[in-house]
Amino acid sequence: MKIAKSPWVRTVILAKPTLQDNTADTDRLISVLKTELQTDAVHVDLNLLKELPEVIRKCDYKVRCILFKDRHRWLVTGIAGIDDSLPVAGLAVDLGTTRVVLRILDLSDGRTLGESGFDNPQLAAGPDILARIHFAETSGGLERLNKAIVNGLNQAVQDLCRSCRLDPQDIYTVTVAGNTAMTHLFMGVNPRWIIREPYIPVINKPGVIKAAELGIQVNAHARVFIFPNVGSYFGGDLIAGIFFAGFHKLSEPAILVDVGTNAEVVVGNENWLIACAGAAGPALEGGMTAMGMLAGPGVVDRIAIDPVTHEFDLHTIEGQAPKGICGSGIIDLAAALFLSEMIDIRGKFVSAACGGHLKRINGLAHLVIVPADQSATGSDLTISQVDLDSLIRSKAAMYTILETITTSVGMELRGLSSFFVGGTFGSFIDPRAAIAIGMLPDLPLACYKPLGNSSLGGAALALTSVDFLEEIDDIRDRITYLELNVNQEFMNRFSAAKFLPHTDASLFPSVKKVGLKHF
Amino acid sequence: MKIAKSPWVRTVILAKPTLQDNTADTDRLISVLKTELQTDAVHVDLNLLKELPEVIRKCDYKVRCILFKDRHRWLVTGIAGIDDSLPVAGLAVDLGTTRVVLRILDLSDGRTLGESGFDNPQLAAGPDILARIHFAETSGGLERLNKAIVNGLNQAVQDLCRSCRLDPQDIYTVTVAGNTAMTHLFMGVNPRWIIREPYIPVINKPGVIKAAELGIQVNAHARVFIFPNVGSYFGGDLIAGIFFAGFHKLSEPAILVDVGTNAEVVVGNENWLIACAGAAGPALEGGMTAMGMLAGPGVVDRIAIDPVTHEFDLHTIEGQAPKGICGSGIIDLAAALFLSEMIDIRGKFVSAACGGHLKRINGLAHLVIVPADQSATGSDLTISQVDLDSLIRSKAAMYTILETITTSVGMELRGLSSFFVGGTFGSFIDPRAAIAIGMLPDLPLACYKPLGNSSLGGAALALTSVDFLEEIDDIRDRITYLELNVNQEFMNRFSAAKFLPHTDASLFPSVKKVGLKHF
Repeated sequence: MKIAKSPWVRTVILAKPTLQDNTADTDRLISVLKTELQTDAVHVDLNLLKELPEVIRKCDYKVRCILFKDRHRWLVTGIAGIDDSLPVAGLAVDLGTTRVVLRILDLSDGRTLGESGFDNPQLAAGPDILARIHFAETSGGLERLNKAIVNGLNQAVQDLCRSCRLDPQDIYTVTVAGNTAMTHLFMGVNPRWIIREPYIPVINKPGVIKAAELGIQVNAHARVFIFPNVGSYFGGDLIAGIFFAGFHKLSEPAILVDVGTNAEVVVGNENWLIACAGAAGPALEGGMTAMGMLAGPGVVDRIAIDPVTHEFDLHTIEGQAPKGICGSGIIDLAAALFLSEMIDIRGKFVSAACGGHLKRINGLAHLVIVPADQSATGSDLTISQVDLDSLIRSKAAMYTILETITTSVGMELRGLSSFFVGGTFGSFIDPRAAIAIGMLPDLPLACYKPLGNSSLGGAALALTSVDFLEEIDDIRDRITYLELNVNQEFMNRFSAAKFLPHTDASLFPSVKKVGLKHF
Repeated sequence: MKIAKSPWVRTVILAKPTLQDNTADTDRLISVLKTELQTDAVHVDLNLLKELPEVIRKCDYKVRCILFKDRHRWLVTGIAGIDDSLPVAGLAVDLGTTRVVLRILDLSDGRTLGESGFDNPQLAAGPDILARIHFAETSGGLERLNKAIVNGLNQAVQDLCRSCRLDPQDIYTVTVAGNTAMTHLFMGVNPRWIIREPYIPVINKPGVIKAAELGIQVNAHARVFIFPNVGSYFGGDLIAGIFFAGFHKLSEPAILVDVGTNAEVVVGNENWLIACAGAAGPALEGGMTAMGMLAGPGVVDRIAIDPVTHEFDLHTIEGQAPKGICGSGIIDLAAALFLSEMIDIRGKFVSAACGGHLKRINGLAHLVIVPADQSATGSDLTISQVDLDSLIRSKAAMYTILETITTSVGMELRGLSSFFVGGTFGSFIDPRAAIAIGMLPDLPLACYKPLGNSSLGGAALALTSVDFLEEIDDIRDRITYLELNVNQEFMNRFSAAKFLPHTDASLFPSVKKVGLKHF
């Protein structure tokens, strides 16, 4: 009876009803789909079955069914004639605290049809999770945050659809990956217990919800899958990253790090997964330094220093006059300063080497990276000793977390075959620089695999297979969460990691003070 | 962990969350329920999980869960503290074409809390199914019929709740039994193909739908189960009747007849069920005679005739002056006329025996049952020869249908151990009278079991067990529908049954012309 096969769209031919075979329209369709899909559970929503009699008669009992599989239960989310060339699209959403990115895919072949992003409208209520959770506790706050993100997403979907020549009605499946607090706010669920000991989310596995129930304006029958979380500090965005990296299919142990204010780390392979999260400090994202800012035009993202002349060689985004420095630029800078011996192994400025670049402002040592006459701001762009100290604490925290989690499973960092760096920011880090300052372990460069936006990547990957739910739930259930105890052992490791690259130089054989090659 | 057990309400104690056990609130509850219910599928609606964190903390992790079982999947429809004495009620609805009857039960013990009824507001659009289906095809017609029944039910629920000191919010489960067209209109699903060859409903097994989706104003998380149908002419009201009669548990074959304009008949036992439906004619319900009317105060429902004096002994509902006659009264009347030899075996008036009671109106013979000076209307209440002929055709059709279905399974009517008479009207029929005119077979009176409103009975019975869905689906799936072919054999049987009680008097040994005992 079958004509074409696609994981999300099935074409079936129904036997026409007769006096001898007077099975109802819906039950007739369900019965054929049960055979076709080899399942005993097929569901059709009330609102869809209202349309069914006319559709199947109009197309003479040859129908295309758009499907969704919720574990063992199949849902029919759309019905059309066999010749109707209606598009069948899926929407993947990375629900970031700062930025939301969406991608539309063709469900029939997994092709990307379009991508866009927008600043999370909840930013107006607070820059970070903590501020938003507090805002959610004010009167009407939760509803406002929920509306802000839902409306923002609806608008973005509409715009992106228009640019892809689609209609939001063409979207039948939505996958959403975000951290635990963001997904709670997206569902309109109060996140207040997430930030209070013992840090309990309302739900770990939101699973599948009707788009209409969430207020998402796509096809009326569309379903939304929300990635599960492991707890308050290990959210669906990271599960999406693990799924995207294909961790759960690796035979050799690998590590995945999502670098940001929090460092979220997973170690494991197809058989086991262990995860932890810890504060690495905002310095890594360039958040704390005076000249630090998010990547954007005119922002310094690459720095090299001539080992002889100590001249800076800066690269800015889009080649514009420099106005600040982003996270990957700061890591580059610290590595270059260290390799050119302008800072010592404690990260302190070496006056002799810094020479005229060094300046005292309010009694504090500052290194001028871009003099006022070359900067876009008309002021010196500088980095202070305090900024450097903060960066070193952050990189030390990061390395300590990596060391602690691998040690906890009786491994060494050098025993890892792949090192996935997740997050948009992670993609811009030069692993050579990160190794030079001892933030990341000294693995062969080929081991480092930037994932880009792995949260979006995982959400989009899910749309290429109807069986993704089981796969993702399986990943989530296999994760052992390691609570990081800041005990004496941790502090000892942290102290050793506060040097450049480390007190134990044998851990970083490749780091030689010869300067990094110019870009 | 378990404290109390009820099929619909379970009390569970959750382990309090700790830093070591930071499972989310919902997942914690689901996990305990999975163990408690020995299932792998427990679902909590989005809107309910929004309330969950505060509820479980307020009641210190001891919670009462109100549950619904949708086949293998359990749904949580309510959560409350262990000490909250909130009532947990269920609503059973008999969705009649003419009248809708509802009953509220306490789900914890199955006790009836209240019952009420109202005329189906769709009557304004048409008296019968056919008229309503045509109305549904007019512009906006379907929506109007749907709104009429939904609003009518909501109002009735509100009123009944008030009289039981309940709130509609206390209703967590609803069961609805009605014929195929009525359930379609209730769901807002277009019934147009039900009346067009080959008579196809939109859906046979509507299953479980959220009350909110149907517009039914009870608890926001409540589920509605709609009884399945076998086809256009064998609806959920009859499946409810079979369920109520306990047919599917009988070791000996039995028969169930729903007497009305249509005669719906089921024969079977725990192993097999065969069903058919056929037009018996409105005469049985008193609909066609000049003095016929629905049961109500002043309506004659019992008649006896003194075999010697031929005096009528009438019983009216509530003892008021007679104004008409209802279906059971007509059957009584025909039986009494026959047994007192005032009509012959063809149902024709015997002038000699009728004497002064007989009157000619417009050239047609009428028998005066109540003279004008004793009637509530001030006119004679009469029955004409045409009325009698019509009644005899109807009773013959009924008997022929009964004979045909039993013969089709190689049985004789006298081989049946139980004869269930369903429907409110069926309850009022005196089986002795029905046997006397040969409408029902001559079985021992103890075999006759009036079921009353078996549709409502089945809907209410469903609320006494969480496993009812499987049981009812199982009944539905086991029914073989027998298409009644009006062939020569059927016509031969019909001709024989058009005599009183039958051409073959040996089939009715108990019928002796001595008159029925006075009531």
